[in-house]
Amino acid sequence: MTQKKTKTFRPKARRPKGFEDRFGALANAENALIAAAAGVYHAHGFEALSTSALEYADCLGKFLPDDDRPNEGVFAFTDDDEQWMALRYDLTAPLARFVAENYDPLPKPLRRFAVGPVWRNEKPGPGRFREFIQVDADTVGAPGAAADAEMIMLAADVMDAAGLARGEYVIRINNRKLLDAVLGGIGVPETDEGAVQLLRVLRAIDKLDRLGPDAVAYLLGKGRKDESGDFTQGAGLDARGIEAVLAFTRAGTDSLDKTLSALDPLMGVSSIGKDGMDELRAIADLLQAAGYDDGRAMIDPSIVRGLGYYTGPVFEADLRIETVNDKGEPARFGSAGGGGRYDDLIARFRGQPVPATGFSFGVSRFAAALHALGRLGGKADGPVVVLALEADQMASYFAMASELRAAGIRAEVYMGGSGMKAQMKYADKRGAPAVVIVGEDERTKGEVTVKNLVLGQQMSGQIKDNKEWREGRPAQTSGPRASW
Amino acid sequence: MTQKKTKTFRPKARRPKGFEDRFGALANAENALIAAAAGVYHAHGFEALSTSALEYADCLGKFLPDDDRPNEGVFAFTDDDEQWMALRYDLTAPLARFVAENYDPLPKPLRRFAVGPVWRNEKPGPGRFREFIQVDADTVGAPGAAADAEMIMLAADVMDAAGLARGEYVIRINNRKLLDAVLGGIGVPETDEGAVQLLRVLRAIDKLDRLGPDAVAYLLGKGRKDESGDFTQGAGLDARGIEAVLAFTRAGTDSLDKTLSALDPLMGVSSIGKDGMDELRAIADLLQAAGYDDGRAMIDPSIVRGLGYYTGPVFEADLRIETVNDKGEPARFGSAGGGGRYDDLIARFRGQPVPATGFSFGVSRFAAALHALGRLGGKADGPVVVLALEADQMASYFAMASELRAAGIRAEVYMGGSGMKAQMKYADKRGAPAVVIVGEDERTKGEVTVKNLVLGQQMSGQIKDNKEWREGRPAQTSGPRASW
Repeated sequence: MTQKKTKTFRPKARRPKGFEDRFGALANAENALIAAAAGVYHAHGFEALSTSALEYADCLGKFLPDDDRPNEGVFAFTDDDEQWMALRYDLTAPLARFVAENYDPLPKPLRRFAVGPVWRNEKPGPGRFREFIQVDADTVGAPGAAADAEMIMLAADVMDAAGLARGEYVIRINNRKLLDAVLGGIGVPETDEGAVQLLRVLRAIDKLDRLGPDAVAYLLGKGRKDESGDFTQGAGLDARGIEAVLAFTRAGTDSLDKTLSALDPLMGVSSIGKDGMDELRAIADLLQAAGYDDGRAMIDPSIVRGLGYYTGPVFEADLRIETVNDKGEPARFGSAGGGGRYDDLIARFRGQPVPATGFSFGVSRFAAALHALGRLGGKADGPVVVLALEADQMASYFAMASELRAAGIRAEVYMGGSGMKAQMKYADKRGAPAVVIVGEDERTKGEVTVKNLVLGQQMSGQIKDNKEWREGRPAQTSGPRASW
Repeated sequence: MTQKKTKTFRPKARRPKGFEDRFGALANAENALIAAAAGVYHAHGFEALSTSALEYADCLGKFLPDDDRPNEGVFAFTDDDEQWMALRYDLTAPLARFVAENYDPLPKPLRRFAVGPVWRNEKPGPGRFREFIQVDADTVGAPGAAADAEMIMLAADVMDAAGLARGEYVIRINNRKLLDAVLGGIGVPETDEGAVQLLRVLRAIDKLDRLGPDAVAYLLGKGRKDESGDFTQGAGLDARGIEAVLAFTRAGTDSLDKTLSALDPLMGVSSIGKDGMDELRAIADLLQAAGYDDGRAMIDPSIVRGLGYYTGPVFEADLRIETVNDKGEPARFGSAGGGGRYDDLIARFRGQPVPATGFSFGVSRFAAALHALGRLGGKADGPVVVLALEADQMASYFAMASELRAAGIRAEVYMGGSGMKAQMKYADKRGAPAVVIVGEDERTKGEVTVKNLVLGQQMSGQIKDNKEWREGRPAQTSGPRASW
């Protein structure tokens, strides 16, 4: 006879694929980058806005670059009332909902910054995360190129605040209207079919960095089979069209003026091309006047940005220093963030245009790269650990840690159940600069032993005062407790 | 013949029910509370951990107080690989998953703090939100009462850091083991049926604040029909049992010693009751030694906390000042946060106990209350607005705003497309302390007019330097720009 035993269900502890845990110094780096960006935005008059992670799916709309996948790139489900809800895929679509819902009482323009996680239901892979933190600034109700120029300057200011030096990053600028003009010039019609072609061209250009111009030429033409054998449908341009697009993407230089001169003949007689050039000229003038043409900002027609809602100028912030990849190998980092003008996104709700422009940093990946480079988050800033050596002396240990904190020193009492050896190991693992030791011996003498774990050697002496403790940090000292 | 017109889909901009937008001062209050708590936790040696919003549902477990509802209180859906995923309902369950998954390399004890949104799939209602931000501190691998006492002291320290004065809040302490002893004393068995009864008793006590003892007596007995006619099944205690439980919940006083003395006879000969009392005694001793028995902490057997995973001491932070409710009426605020010991939560994964204790603040509601009371977030700290009066002078306006920011003054250039009157209205709406006016007249004279919107009157004179500008803030002054 088979006996059935009641077995307790034991789940396997596992992080879902494509999601990350950030602990200690890495989490600190992320928080430092958020604080730097929020500080810049606040100083420029932007107000904080927090909206919920979940929105009705129809309010978010379909603007993701991979909206041809069946699940459209978002995590979605039906609520109790059968309405489709989705986790936001960026912070711009929720802003559009917020503005449309609260339009009348809001100041116009609305200057808002926002920080929070966003979700993409992508196939997980190296460097592809399904949740990441964005920090955004947007100006809504701002029709002019000055608002775009300001977004570019703000992006540079955030890169500065993150500790990057001149020449280590660049904000690349383009205008989608120029691409419209180029496509018009090679006969792509302004129809629904033309719009599909335009989208395929955008996606192809977006892959220039990763795949190079030869592969992109296939994507602009008949299509391309990748190494895994998957075929991507091409934009269907002929050889002349492919070359026109590629020539356009190559026109970028480090000089704003030179790039504008190089682009001008490529626009032909297109009126949309002229509009786009005028906008870029106005942006360039403001950047030059403010001194941002020192390598911080360049016009680069090879950047297009993936999101579908941009209507004019687009921006991208790139690191120009080598970073390290997931495996610790030197690698090109790519984009730390991007943005652009989206004059029609709020019109979706309101029926009349509300011009808007913004910039979004992808905090999680950018902070991880800066941290790996030693630029952000720093080393472990461990606490002083007060050892817990006598069970009935915990109150006294608490008092010591409290005194240290009152003097501005991060400090804690050991809270585990193990002996002195394990406690010393713990302090080491935490990166503690020192441990405070008061065993029975010290206690009966009214003394305190401080062991400096940075110097790592044994010394004896007396700590005269807190100043000496902080500055001199002797390897180990014992002294009467009152002398702290 | 009927003609069909293609109509553009226009979604209705609407925030999902039970979710909130926080803008400006309210968002600032939330961020200030988070920064205050994070500062306290970091100083005490806790490290930041960020985990993802989504977890596998089996890793989160079912510990919500309303887990008898069909959807179990969480937002859940199946991923592409058919595994159930859920939005986290707190920050403790993901911590347990993180610890179990990374057990060996982590320092033990693990001291971590975390900030982030959590989601509850509840029926939306006044003051009931489906997303709110929590800030948590937990010590994992800490078996002793000292770790619990520290959590209570930390909770008080965070209340202090949030700007509350002595007597304006209290941390209430209880121990679930005492309730076990009381129930054992009135014959509730230690079986599965007894566990169901215990859960119903916990939920009944949890409603004391809201419903009062008479209604709770029904919930402890045969059950209760509420005003809407919904019937809640009772715990099935008899009159003697109901009175024993209610007497237990009434035993709290402001004195730690007096409450312990009052509870002692209610424990009878129960060994679990003795364990619980010993733990409370040890906690009380440490609180007294550290001076937290000055009204900041009390033992109150009427608090039980809703979550199912607590195994011993439980805590709750309550405001003792009147707040205002959603309608602006004076109201009792209730709990700002809570916590407790959960020695079995990580054992779910590992099979062996990992003792742990923690505390969680419900930031969103608490910050909103503090802000409504004028305690947090402050008034609108609007930027100085540089008016944009001549379209070809934007570069000059940018330079002025930049100079102001360099002097530590929050400043922006007006980015809209409207005239001077609308710009002044905008500055007013933003709570701007001043506007900077450089029209054609000022420009040709090389002057700047500064209008003080706080004084709101017209004055003339010359600003000698930035210090005078910041301190004196004359209502309106004109002066040569170089004199700034």
